[in-house]
Amino acid sequence: VFSPESAPEPARRPLREHGVTWGHLLPGPLNAITDVAGVQVGHVTHRHTGVTAIRPAPGDVFQAKVAAGVCVLNAFGKAAGLLQVMELGTVETPIVLCNTLAVGRCADALVDHVLAANPDVRSVNPVVLECNDGRINDIRRRGVSGEDVHRALSLCVSGPVAQGAAGAGRGMVAYGVKGGIGTASRRTTHAAASYTTGALVLANMGDWPQLQVLGVPVGRLLPRPQGGAATPPEGSIIMLLATDAPLDARQLARVARRAPLGMARTGATAGHGSGDFVLAWSTANRVPNDTPSPPLLTPTLLHDAALGPLFAAAVEATEEAILNALCCAEPVGGVPALPVEDVLGLVRSAPWL
Amino acid sequence: VFSPESAPEPARRPLREHGVTWGHLLPGPLNAITDVAGVQVGHVTHRHTGVTAIRPAPGDVFQAKVAAGVCVLNAFGKAAGLLQVMELGTVETPIVLCNTLAVGRCADALVDHVLAANPDVRSVNPVVLECNDGRINDIRRRGVSGEDVHRALSLCVSGPVAQGAAGAGRGMVAYGVKGGIGTASRRTTHAAASYTTGALVLANMGDWPQLQVLGVPVGRLLPRPQGGAATPPEGSIIMLLATDAPLDARQLARVARRAPLGMARTGATAGHGSGDFVLAWSTANRVPNDTPSPPLLTPTLLHDAALGPLFAAAVEATEEAILNALCCAEPVGGVPALPVEDVLGLVRSAPWL
Amino acid sequence: VFSPESAPEPARRPLREHGVTWGHLLPGPLNAITDVAGVQVGHVTHRHTGVTAIRPAPGDVFQAKVAAGVCVLNAFGKAAGLLQVMELGTVETPIVLCNTLAVGRCADALVDHVLAANPDVRSVNPVVLECNDGRINDIRRRGVSGEDVHRALSLCVSGPVAQGAAGAGRGMVAYGVKGGIGTASRRTTHAAASYTTGALVLANMGDWPQLQVLGVPVGRLLPRPQGGAATPPEGSIIMLLATDAPLDARQLARVARRAPLGMARTGATAGHGSGDFVLAWSTANRVPNDTPSPPLLTPTLLHDAALGPLFAAAVEATEEAILNALCCAEPVGGVPALPVEDVLGLVRSAPWL
Amino acid sequence: VFSPESAPEPARRPLREHGVTWGHLLPGPLNAITDVAGVQVGHVTHRHTGVTAIRPAPGDVFQAKVAAGVCVLNAFGKAAGLLQVMELGTVETPIVLCNTLAVGRCADALVDHVLAANPDVRSVNPVVLECNDGRINDIRRRGVSGEDVHRALSLCVSGPVAQGAAGAGRGMVAYGVKGGIGTASRRTTHAAASYTTGALVLANMGDWPQLQVLGVPVGRLLPRPQGGAATPPEGSIIMLLATDAPLDARQLARVARRAPLGMARTGATAGHGSGDFVLAWSTANRVPNDTPSPPLLTPTLLHDAALGPLFAAAVEATEEAILNALCCAEPVGGVPALPVEDVLGLVRSAPWL
Repeated sequence: VFSPESAPEPARRPLREHGVTWGHLLPGPLNAITDVAGVQVGHVTHRHTGVTAIRPAPGDVFQAKVAAGVCVLNAFGKAAGLLQVMELGTVETPIVLCNTLAVGRCADALVDHVLAANPDVRSVNPVVLECNDGRINDIRRRGVSGEDVHRALSLCVSGPVAQGAAGAGRGMVAYGVKGGIGTASRRTTHAAASYTTGALVLANMGDWPQLQVLGVPVGRLLPRPQGGAATPPEGSIIMLLATDAPLDARQLARVARRAPLGMARTGATAGHGSGDFVLAWSTANRVPNDTPSPPLLTPTLLHDAALGPLFAAAVEATEEAILNALCCAEPVGGVPALPVEDVLGLVRSAPWL
Repeated sequence: VFSPESAPEPARRPLREHGVTWGHLLPGPLNAITDVAGVQVGHVTHRHTGVTAIRPAPGDVFQAKVAAGVCVLNAFGKAAGLLQVMELGTVETPIVLCNTLAVGRCADALVDHVLAANPDVRSVNPVVLECNDGRINDIRRRGVSGEDVHRALSLCVSGPVAQGAAGAGRGMVAYGVKGGIGTASRRTTHAAASYTTGALVLANMGDWPQLQVLGVPVGRLLPRPQGGAATPPEGSIIMLLATDAPLDARQLARVARRAPLGMARTGATAGHGSGDFVLAWSTANRVPNDTPSPPLLTPTLLHDAALGPLFAAAVEATEEAILNALCCAEPVGGVPALPVEDVLGLVRSAPWL
Repeated sequence: VFSPESAPEPARRPLREHGVTWGHLLPGPLNAITDVAGVQVGHVTHRHTGVTAIRPAPGDVFQAKVAAGVCVLNAFGKAAGLLQVMELGTVETPIVLCNTLAVGRCADALVDHVLAANPDVRSVNPVVLECNDGRINDIRRRGVSGEDVHRALSLCVSGPVAQGAAGAGRGMVAYGVKGGIGTASRRTTHAAASYTTGALVLANMGDWPQLQVLGVPVGRLLPRPQGGAATPPEGSIIMLLATDAPLDARQLARVARRAPLGMARTGATAGHGSGDFVLAWSTANRVPNDTPSPPLLTPTLLHDAALGPLFAAAVEATEEAILNALCCAEPVGGVPALPVEDVLGLVRSAPWL
Repeated sequence: VFSPESAPEPARRPLREHGVTWGHLLPGPLNAITDVAGVQVGHVTHRHTGVTAIRPAPGDVFQAKVAAGVCVLNAFGKAAGLLQVMELGTVETPIVLCNTLAVGRCADALVDHVLAANPDVRSVNPVVLECNDGRINDIRRRGVSGEDVHRALSLCVSGPVAQGAAGAGRGMVAYGVKGGIGTASRRTTHAAASYTTGALVLANMGDWPQLQVLGVPVGRLLPRPQGGAATPPEGSIIMLLATDAPLDARQLARVARRAPLGMARTGATAGHGSGDFVLAWSTANRVPNDTPSPPLLTPTLLHDAALGPLFAAAVEATEEAILNALCCAEPVGGVPALPVEDVLGLVRSAPWL
């Protein structure tokens, strides 16, 4: 295993760390999905591919499931487990990100993982999401193994998240330059309470001319970076949203439907071949696997009329997570990195940025 | 207004009152949707068409909405309001049943009804569902008025429900004989608690040869009743399910998806032109229109693992409601009634019935 | 009837007519939905409300239906007819836009319209879409009548479309300033063929601080215009897309799902109360109401792999249609117009615009 | 590999071969899904589990995809590939049936299968569907391997289909007795043309008291067979429908939505834990993987108004396929077979059967 994930190239860092500010809502302390208490991320990074695992909440999510909702913008993708999430409104495993052809074996490993921890379980719904890293990775070699899943799970930690060409992001290309993993978060206030919503994306979509950074049409103003593949505006993106706001499955699906609006601000148009999926969950109101006696639950839930700030948070965090993926990703396999200095030069030429 | 609804022909009565018993679950005391406390039904019956109003729960459902879920089996229909029900998970008006071409004006009247009771309201989602009574009713005459809606609402009562050719059921034809309004209910027990689930249908689907009564292929064994229109297996059916079990919108949609299984047992196959819609709601856990402060709700909800008996109740109650519509409906406009005695003769020829 | 729709205030004109250029695709000659041959638009404009009718294709769309697809971003809205469109994949009436409380009576009038033209028809699915103009219009007065629908239909014409505070757009507010009707179009090429895709929006969503114009965060840079209501980021938007590309219903739904990405670029986040619906149709491959003999159709359809440019067209045309609504709308009822000169000043301060 | 699949116990045979006749439509010559020309089925049967592969059409379905539609009655299941089928309207691999915990590895093997045959392919959407055979099979042992998939694919043949405890049906339990694979078909005529629609089910749902055979409430009349597990009415069922009628994806989803109506006639109510999925496809109008030049397709399609008989065929074939699974399955792992003679005794006691 090739492991640059513990030390992202110092020169590459998230957009906000370049001193640019924008948007309406403020990030959490890490500006990462791990700002939501209990969310953990682990990467296994190979030379040209990898696996990322996300533990959606503290403890065993099979025994104490998390409420979840889904948005499918373009189902040209091989996502595993989403239909059951839509039906039952819960996620019951860690979430694994990988490449298109590895979904089956990652799901299989995730089953092993849950069986090992739960001796009586005979049914489990692994959630695995993917993008196609075949422009960098020799994807037909099937270089990802179930062992990578177990290792990524064991590496899951709170705290800062390695971004860019890490984990499943290793071979991803977005807007014709290196994409991959990005993350961001937002805080919202609702009367007396405040909540944190974090996004983590696996960005593999869009072509260079489409790229917009904070509204600046970078892709039309700057030449395509050398080596940047002139691909059609295809690819894919996985968008994950975690929140500690107390929402049920229906409400989380509403939150999930806003993530594509954040993606749209970076320029992509969800091309035909772009498998664009969103999964949102809440760490509040865990759902027990074992039926309680009496079989009743008493969640506390936000009234729908209070959802507006969470929708805005989903949009902003998704947009910034994508930009962070680009800003953080070093060149891999001949695909160039985003020319951050050139982009910042343009961005700063806007009187308001 | 022509008003036979207060006195259904004595000779015509629900199937169970003929001494036949079947099924796994027991009905409530009325064997009607009104067994669910607070549900009320009102009919306005014209010669060949009509309107039925259902108040889904006690009090003002705009101010205290009911959780609701939808199943669309065949959306060849003009149902109003269902998309918002799916999004927000609530019904906020009485439910009106009418004929296909009357949906607009009934929705308009329902808006008036809510505005009159709520002086500050500027947005309301009327729920109106329909079948096409054009085989009996000169539907192009547009014989239903908004006034009929107001009157049906004012006639809403608890207690027994007039079935058959009453209200919106006046002009409906099912299985080639007179159809219309039917209702039934089931009791279920879940550990210490027990709940009531009621169905009310507006039955206008199927053709005679398809008819099955308690598994007996009546339509293949008995000749088509004289005057029974040889129609294609089209038509439509609206299936309403009320329950006092504490369910959220996602769970109610799961319940709603079982109603077509009850319909299937009566023989229909949801023909191309058959607009088949299900709306299920719970009278528990009312959702306030005004955002509370703090904006939090604390519903009590059944664990999904306890839903099984409610699914069975939805199937059984829907099946029986359809049969009751047929058993209760007198002949209208040349469409014959179900030949109940002949049907019972066949049914009783089964050694087990 | 108050009728400014024939002469929009000369000083107010679409964004592109101010000499700004942007985007990847070129508009059609009118930069309007009417660039799609056969599409017609008619407005009836009252002082503070109105109705807009769109004829989706030449001739009688009941007898020769148009293939259509739907995207529901936020179903907090009272749209009529969409479920049947999703089931059967066709629109069979003109499309009517109006205010929230007028949907029922507009649907009723649309039924009359189709019955009058089709003597044997007994079932019709009126498509009516709405936004809430209650911030300007005394919506509880119910100032729209069925007669307005008939008049709007009779006024439908090809050619330039009156934008802004016209027709159903009369009382709409978007981003805290006057919104309403906007339109735009894009041309795409696919191998030998080229197609036109047009958008028409009824824009009533978003709040001033959210507004982005061509990527410039106008709403954060300019003070809220005097009189602009400090509303929550709610409202609604209806997005219509017409194309002459030969697509089936499934493909049109895919196109429809891209319209929200165009909306997102203008800053809105689809707030809780914002009923955001998209309807897309194709003028190719009309579907006959009467079953042919034999019952077969032989459409010519684009291969899905060729859809990418149409997705981009949907995004760009929707974005521009929204901006055109703002640029064209004069002040109404105390809601100020977009301060176009200030906005243009900012936009032009970007070195690339 | 344990291989009884080549020789089902002679005494056990499909229901119709016992001389009972019913229904409105006639079967094809094999009364099997393989009556649809080009459909092939292959089983690999282990002692307590297995794999079934279905080739949906002649030739390479990756290069020439089949139009397909999905119905999800209860998504408590781990089905792979269905979301992309819904988006693109096509199936591009053979369909594999297996147990719940084997989906990942079967999907992985199916990827290998397609990659091997298509040297340039880097993305493929394997369709794998499952039920839980954990009542007979020690499912946690993970006894299914990718090799089983390759072998099942290599065994795919036209002609009669081994039913009951064969292939993936090996460990399945339905209505408290041995379930598994069942199949049936129906012919329909539409003006000049006639079509064949076949069903193949993997039946693992329902409890004994629910069982209805041709309307006879067998499960209430006969004691639970010795050894029949008193399970809750859970389980699962996969329903596949193949047709040679020329339908597009939207129409096939409409057909798929009728399969649960056939299931309902056998008594099941789609319990909470029952993952009930339907996949329907047409062998007409193959969709090329490579974009043609120009990128246009010219399918011939049935008009929707001609779909009615296909809906009835889906209902009847699904019902009979389930009954055939029960009639054909021998006892496995202590789960008794359906007591066919007792059931037939009851069925024949009905004067009409």
